Amino acid sequence: MPPFDVPEGDPFGPHNLPYGVFSPSGSTERRVGVRFGDHVLDAGAAAAALGSPYHSLLARPTLNALLAAGRPVWSDVRRVITSWITDPAHHEAVEPLFRHLSEVTLHLPFEVADYVDFYASENHARNVGQIFRPDAADSLTPNWKHLPIGYHGRSGTVVVSGTDVVRPSGQRKAPADPAPVFGPSVRLDIEAEVGFVVGVPSALGSPVALADFRDHVFGLCLLNDWSARDIQAWEYVPLGPFLGKSFATSVSAWITPLEALEHARVAPPERTHPLLPYLDDSAPGNEAGGYDLRISVAINGHVVSEPPFSTMYWTAAQQLAHMTVNGASLRTGDLYGSGTVSGPEERQRGSLLELTWNGQDPLELPDGKRAFLEDGDVVTLSAWAPGADGRRVGLGEVSGRVVAG
Amino acid sequence: MPPFDVPEGDPFGPHNLPYGVFSPSGSTERRVGVRFGDHVLDAGAAAAALGSPYHSLLARPTLNALLAAGRPVWSDVRRVITSWITDPAHHEAVEPLFRHLSEVTLHLPFEVADYVDFYASENHARNVGQIFRPDAADSLTPNWKHLPIGYHGRSGTVVVSGTDVVRPSGQRKAPADPAPVFGPSVRLDIEAEVGFVVGVPSALGSPVALADFRDHVFGLCLLNDWSARDIQAWEYVPLGPFLGKSFATSVSAWITPLEALEHARVAPPERTHPLLPYLDDSAPGNEAGGYDLRISVAINGHVVSEPPFSTMYWTAAQQLAHMTVNGASLRTGDLYGSGTVSGPEERQRGSLLELTWNGQDPLELPDGKRAFLEDGDVVTLSAWAPGADGRRVGLGEVSGRVVAG
Repeated sequence: MPPFDVPEGDPFGPHNLPYGVFSPSGSTERRVGVRFGDHVLDAGAAAAALGSPYHSLLARPTLNALLAAGRPVWSDVRRVITSWITDPAHHEAVEPLFRHLSEVTLHLPFEVADYVDFYASENHARNVGQIFRPDAADSLTPNWKHLPIGYHGRSGTVVVSGTDVVRPSGQRKAPADPAPVFGPSVRLDIEAEVGFVVGVPSALGSPVALADFRDHVFGLCLLNDWSARDIQAWEYVPLGPFLGKSFATSVSAWITPLEALEHARVAPPERTHPLLPYLDDSAPGNEAGGYDLRISVAINGHVVSEPPFSTMYWTAAQQLAHMTVNGASLRTGDLYGSGTVSGPEERQRGSLLELTWNGQDPLELPDGKRAFLEDGDVVTLSAWAPGADGRRVGLGEVSGRVVAG
Repeated sequence: MPPFDVPEGDPFGPHNLPYGVFSPSGSTERRVGVRFGDHVLDAGAAAAALGSPYHSLLARPTLNALLAAGRPVWSDVRRVITSWITDPAHHEAVEPLFRHLSEVTLHLPFEVADYVDFYASENHARNVGQIFRPDAADSLTPNWKHLPIGYHGRSGTVVVSGTDVVRPSGQRKAPADPAPVFGPSVRLDIEAEVGFVVGVPSALGSPVALADFRDHVFGLCLLNDWSARDIQAWEYVPLGPFLGKSFATSVSAWITPLEALEHARVAPPERTHPLLPYLDDSAPGNEAGGYDLRISVAINGHVVSEPPFSTMYWTAAQQLAHMTVNGASLRTGDLYGSGTVSGPEERQRGSLLELTWNGQDPLELPDGKRAFLEDGDVVTLSAWAPGADGRRVGLGEVSGRVVAG
């Protein structure tokens, strides 16, 4: 039975089991799927075939019902699905419910409620500060070490991996230009990020504590926060990025549950400034919240960077605590991005802005130089995390091709 | 029949007919309603009683299906509902389907997709610039006259009029403080705005032209963009407002269709800078897009300001064109705020920040001085627009009480 014939070292073995939404080739019906090796298990159909009470959560066109169910249910659903795949007693029933990845279309796995993007990598923030404010005494703004800076993005333009990205047009104005000009962005960039998916909502007026992170967040995905640097530079003072980001945000098709990443949990970098209690993840019982995720950034198949997520100064738990400390409520399907992941080394930077130092030092690719993205370029972020016994937990990929407007 | 006994000068006469969502007292079922005088007509029940084909759009718990239907349907639904109310032949059928406003609970009238807030009043932007950058040569940022500055807000915390607003806590740091402190905001403010409600979606990658504004936007409401100035001041550089705004945004319960506001259309202020073609509302066929709305701001029933919407530099049509010019798509239920409405006079300013000049010159209210809002304060924005023959078109009100966290 080929679906069960997954090699020992496969990053999508039974230790992983990420969730997505697929349509079988030739159909438009959307179904919750679980990835195993190179196959997708139709989870709703399997629940029906095996008489699982979780049928009502899984026989759905999005993950939202499962996301809303909460951690005890998430754990038990994972236990049940693991048994379907690993217990030969169930193989006859579920074997016909697998489809090869080549025979399905993958969709946006959940309905995005609010989308927030953070700015949590110290290396990234320092690089950006040095590029745009070279004369400043400190490359970080005064608030940076005290709170995870974030802003809301456009949830309606979050798209699944594989969706083409139309080069945006807009206003830009170089300092020497007498007036702004209009046209397609000439500084189209990527931002390699990790996205966190909220499952359990919270009430308006009730902050979510650091210790409650895992009660609310279901899992994570890869995220490319496409950015038009020229549009962004002209518009963003004083209210922040808007059209420079809102044209598209791509996410991977597979949501990896936090439970699959237990062996990837790491302590965040040492904090150089004291933190207010609601952000103090060194206090007993609070969620340390770091994850060791190894990201790879490729342009047209050529790897240009390998940003290490373990270097992020602010964790996803701190971001959640900060985002809600003013009483803002969470909804099922809220998505928040980590911010661009950049490590300390040059080849660990998560944007072309940093990799080419604002275009001054273009990348040398096999098909030519790149200061910023050209039409036709395919950008692919992929990642894995350490699992038990030397295994890798595959986080899949998020890919997108730039097309002319 | 009392429901039909609306005085000639009533701002909610047959010339208005705004839409909302209500539950009858004692029920939790949500229904689309149309306001007429001091009554609400159960629109779905009326459509059923009279055999209207629009029953499927109106017998719903939100306005979203009606919003998605598009302008030809919006016009015809309005024609049909007008006939139910004004043609005595229908009175016997619809009379039992009215309820007095005192006998219903009003709800958020539509599911908010993305929420964007603009910054479109020149008077407001200049006041804010003078307060925060008193030494700058120009109180406006260089981009202000070239594009309508905006940013995304939190759609999950948009609440209907009447919802209490919990005073947010967060970080703040005065310039003289050695480190940030945490606590309830001590500079809680209002922003008097108008919100525009998108009905018809647009495709990713396809800008919406100025001329197509009325094909996409259904109507408008009043909006109070509550703002914690101390939280905002510490967090907003470089990525814009986040927790200083995301705790609550209040909207009025009634959505006034643009068709009720034909007599309130006015030319926007003279443009002092040439506009790029996609924003040039002086070109033939484009939507001029100004509206003459007379707003009133009251604290605990005492009117403190009367901001005139006709003074807004950037119109809702320009905001829609700008928001989509990069190819960002629209969804049914997208909401965008005009930005704080401030006229040229002191008593026309739409925020306490401006009315008290950053707290230096507190308002004298009957119950004491106010630099910013105190717990227990009830803020009410109300408005009307000129209609035909000297009538007023009532825009209702958006009200909220500040409560301690």
